[in-house]
Amino acid sequence: MKRIESTQNALVKHWKKLVTQRKEREKTGEYIVEGFHLVEEALKHKDQIVQIIVRDGVDLPLLWAIDEVVLVHVNEAVSKEIAETENSQGVFAHCKQRQISEDEQFDWKKVLLVDAVQDPGNIGTMIRTADAAGIDAVVLGKGSVDAFNPKSLRSAQGSHFHIPVVRGDLMEWVENLQADGIRVFGTSLDESISYKKVEPSDSFALIVGNEGSGINPQILAKTDQNIIIPILGGAESLNVAVATGILLYAFVK
Amino acid sequence: MKRIESTQNALVKHWKKLVTQRKEREKTGEYIVEGFHLVEEALKHKDQIVQIIVRDGVDLPLLWAIDEVVLVHVNEAVSKEIAETENSQGVFAHCKQRQISEDEQFDWKKVLLVDAVQDPGNIGTMIRTADAAGIDAVVLGKGSVDAFNPKSLRSAQGSHFHIPVVRGDLMEWVENLQADGIRVFGTSLDESISYKKVEPSDSFALIVGNEGSGINPQILAKTDQNIIIPILGGAESLNVAVATGILLYAFVK
Repeated sequence: MKRIESTQNALVKHWKKLVTQRKEREKTGEYIVEGFHLVEEALKHKDQIVQIIVRDGVDLPLLWAIDEVVLVHVNEAVSKEIAETENSQGVFAHCKQRQISEDEQFDWKKVLLVDAVQDPGNIGTMIRTADAAGIDAVVLGKGSVDAFNPKSLRSAQGSHFHIPVVRGDLMEWVENLQADGIRVFGTSLDESISYKKVEPSDSFALIVGNEGSGINPQILAKTDQNIIIPILGGAESLNVAVATGILLYAFVK
Repeated sequence: MKRIESTQNALVKHWKKLVTQRKEREKTGEYIVEGFHLVEEALKHKDQIVQIIVRDGVDLPLLWAIDEVVLVHVNEAVSKEIAETENSQGVFAHCKQRQISEDEQFDWKKVLLVDAVQDPGNIGTMIRTADAAGIDAVVLGKGSVDAFNPKSLRSAQGSHFHIPVVRGDLMEWVENLQADGIRVFGTSLDESISYKKVEPSDSFALIVGNEGSGINPQILAKTDQNIIIPILGGAESLNVAVATGILLYAFVK
């Protein structure tokens, strides 16, 4: 049984960086999830687990299948060092993103493209929503916040383990999807139609954009159709994750 | 011009309580919004403003119609005392909830009922969504978090000024709505139909429930119809604010 008691330990320093630094996550493809619910989801995808981290005094549920995973026990100080929440449950999974081949990407027929969304909670909720709606993948453009930061992971409630989340150039993605015959929808206030006029389909791409400024106009100019969600009351706009939910559920068959 | 420089000032203590204590907000019906965007929304509803609070060095936009409102200038220390965010914009509106008569409540035909939602961000986003969807009012049951806490106010982006948000006994509300001939929908996994089978209407009530446990079974038993949003992928469920958006937009005409 492995045990770590010093916050100066090299592995603890690595974990700490995975929790706090986007650069470290992107360099390694690794990330850390926290809490019973997320670790339980991770255990359903053992190929993505590097190790499980457990604080002294925390009992793991008897039903958890932990035979084949590396378990690292840590003391209170180490747990606190990597905990995201104040009342941490003291259980973590150090994970590694699944490699996604180009071939796999060619097969995606229902894709959510995200342009410059800034709030980690929104990104996480959008990943959860895309997962629920049966979307094939989420593609984040350059300006979007990191989807593997602790707040995004928490909001996504484990959907990172179910649906591929990749980074990409959205202009290229739009072109490639269109070359494959997949219709690409943007959300915009200009030259748009109500989303209710779009027929549900087995193949489509939806682009959603920044909380304040929406989608980059250069990308919008390339879509097949831009759509709006009509505002029927006094609000100026909808939260981007809520809008994503309304649109994805209207578009899927 | 009124000016306050001490955090020990009685008014500052009252503001601080409004920011931090639900009890104070409920006793007085007052609350505080922070930041340019929300204060600008407040100024469109001057009857709900008690006073505007401005930190030293903060310039108010010239276009703001502040002639008829009370302006209180404060120093850095007082501003910090009542600020919710670390990088506060130093401008606040001390507001008072509009009184809502029983007669007004009888006229509501599209109502969102909220049972025991716990997250302030979710409540705020739901109020914003209901406002966008043209709903007449939001009714919060006993177990729900306070809709006027700073996090809810921030997520709602000013919708508190547009749509009535009241507290009530949900069992009574369901009965009264039904007595008025308004169909009441609950969200549940049992004995439910897909929300897509519900025809859009000018009059309906939707109940949404707690993030973990859903709606109280006693309330669910009283609805006219329970509905579900089908999960098409790997997620266990949807975020409650996203679900609210999907359902409200599917039900409104």
